[in-house]
Amino acid sequence: MSNLNKKRILTGDRPTGPLHIGHYVGSVKNRVLLQNEYELFYLIADVQALTDNYDNPEKVASNIFQVAQDNIACGLDPEKSTIFIQSMIPEIAELTVFFMNLVSHNEVLRNPTVKTEIKEKNFGDSTPFGFVGYPVSQAADILFIGTDVVPVGVDQAPMLELTNVVARRFNSTYKTDLLKEIKPLFGVEKNLIGTDGDAKMSKSKGNTINLMDTDEEVIAKVKKMYTDPTRIHATDPGKVEGNPVFIYHDFLNPNLAEVNDLKERYLKGTVGDVEVKDKLSKAIIKFLEPIRERRAQFPLDKVKEIVLEGTKRTQAEARLRLDKIKEAMKIKYF
Amino acid sequence: MSNLNKKRILTGDRPTGPLHIGHYVGSVKNRVLLQNEYELFYLIADVQALTDNYDNPEKVASNIFQVAQDNIACGLDPEKSTIFIQSMIPEIAELTVFFMNLVSHNEVLRNPTVKTEIKEKNFGDSTPFGFVGYPVSQAADILFIGTDVVPVGVDQAPMLELTNVVARRFNSTYKTDLLKEIKPLFGVEKNLIGTDGDAKMSKSKGNTINLMDTDEEVIAKVKKMYTDPTRIHATDPGKVEGNPVFIYHDFLNPNLAEVNDLKERYLKGTVGDVEVKDKLSKAIIKFLEPIRERRAQFPLDKVKEIVLEGTKRTQAEARLRLDKIKEAMKIKYF
Repeated sequence: MSNLNKKRILTGDRPTGPLHIGHYVGSVKNRVLLQNEYELFYLIADVQALTDNYDNPEKVASNIFQVAQDNIACGLDPEKSTIFIQSMIPEIAELTVFFMNLVSHNEVLRNPTVKTEIKEKNFGDSTPFGFVGYPVSQAADILFIGTDVVPVGVDQAPMLELTNVVARRFNSTYKTDLLKEIKPLFGVEKNLIGTDGDAKMSKSKGNTINLMDTDEEVIAKVKKMYTDPTRIHATDPGKVEGNPVFIYHDFLNPNLAEVNDLKERYLKGTVGDVEVKDKLSKAIIKFLEPIRERRAQFPLDKVKEIVLEGTKRTQAEARLRLDKIKEAMKIKYF
Repeated sequence: MSNLNKKRILTGDRPTGPLHIGHYVGSVKNRVLLQNEYELFYLIADVQALTDNYDNPEKVASNIFQVAQDNIACGLDPEKSTIFIQSMIPEIAELTVFFMNLVSHNEVLRNPTVKTEIKEKNFGDSTPFGFVGYPVSQAADILFIGTDVVPVGVDQAPMLELTNVVARRFNSTYKTDLLKEIKPLFGVEKNLIGTDGDAKMSKSKGNTINLMDTDEEVIAKVKKMYTDPTRIHATDPGKVEGNPVFIYHDFLNPNLAEVNDLKERYLKGTVGDVEVKDKLSKAIIKFLEPIRERRAQFPLDKVKEIVLEGTKRTQAEARLRLDKIKEAMKIKYF
């Protein structure tokens, strides 16, 4: 790896389930491109996943190597990128504890991202203290490795702003320039709706097509997909816009001629849902094929080795950086 | 050390200034006795001190070895007890982060000890998030080493209760009995008032007699001590009860006959403040003498070695225990 002149990018997933094509379209595809331009660190965010799954660690544990494998199958290249497990970097926890002093309780509570997520999670009276504090942990995730850039959705912007507040405050408090402010990299937001037409593809809603689904599963799921609810017969003119099946075609079917033909005939009422879905299944199966092939080249035990190696590399770097950070804080006593 | 059958006790100080005779009377004396009965771990709580001194780490850093030396000078025996630095045990930070998920935000805020301390510290709108969370850090301090007993003041009881909540919840969530609930050891509360008669001896109020004060400093401080404010002449009958000088005599002058004689004469108005104070100075100087001698045997570089050794011993144990804890949490992946 000759990453010396490249800027560092941090990206990652919460290991709470297998990745689906929504993840691919929304972040993984972009990540795979970014690893050529940046020195990419990929964080398996198990500690963060535990903030709202602390009572179900098996769910987190069982997905650690799964998400890594999913990413590698999509093209994340262990030769180019460093894959590591959050809980195995104690320095992140140490920084979290230090950073907790640099932001006020009110600042954390005012953070719009946290406010929204707490509301969405419906914790009621029992929001875990750790969940409230997770923007601080995230600042530690980002800053411990000297990240330059973080790819994010627009709704995550306030959270990253808190990271920069921490970096600035650390530098001015301890009269150093050790912590770099980061730049958010706002991608063109690509969100794939669920197979049921819901705004988001999400495991908990059972409306996903997973990257490791078999052909049979894909076919069955596409068969059940929502289309134009107002159309009753194949000979009725149908709607293309907002129609989940066509949204998927646009995202996943590279045969533009075929997609256009289907759209035209759908609008006129000269094609049935069966054909549209059949062609979609085929496109998705074709799309998943190279992912499946690459997955076969990276069985879980190989993935495990890759993750261990990446984690060790990250550990070594984290130790060096925390040493410097403690020196700046003047709490290195030996 | 043959501590195998002994119960473990955790005690410690925030390294924010030299210890004074109030500390001695309130905790150090007791600690020195306890090290014979228990396997004693002495925590230099620099991370906790940073929660409200994050912008003044020099103050914390410069007192790390000082508080250790003060304790050793008072009789804390490095052959019997383990002295270690909090910030050098990353496992405490790791546990803090995990434990933050086991208590709700509301539970932390409801804690009476924290409520009171936040009020006392006058943070206004900007209470550091870390300060709000410090009962959780404290749970980690206590539980990481398998503590059985913690000596505390009564006002600290709710804080320890939170530690036990964390232990119980951890055990029930992860179906283990790894974390032991702790027993508070309520000593007879001994609080020494300040030289100005204030309820508490406290560096910030400038009303302390420090363990490392010179004879001249002791004499000068005692001279300025408050006595009975209603007494004008040495021939006026004076009050003994509540009189700071006599409170000090009771705590620090082992010559009971002398103290009784002074009290009797004070009540009758046949002794002046000068004599009472002179005898108090002498008593305090005599009390400080063995502490000074022991300090001379443990210069700071020797203390540094002791602390490093104790910290290494604690690190080794912390690693083993965190390994088991992660196993119980099912997040040990390799």
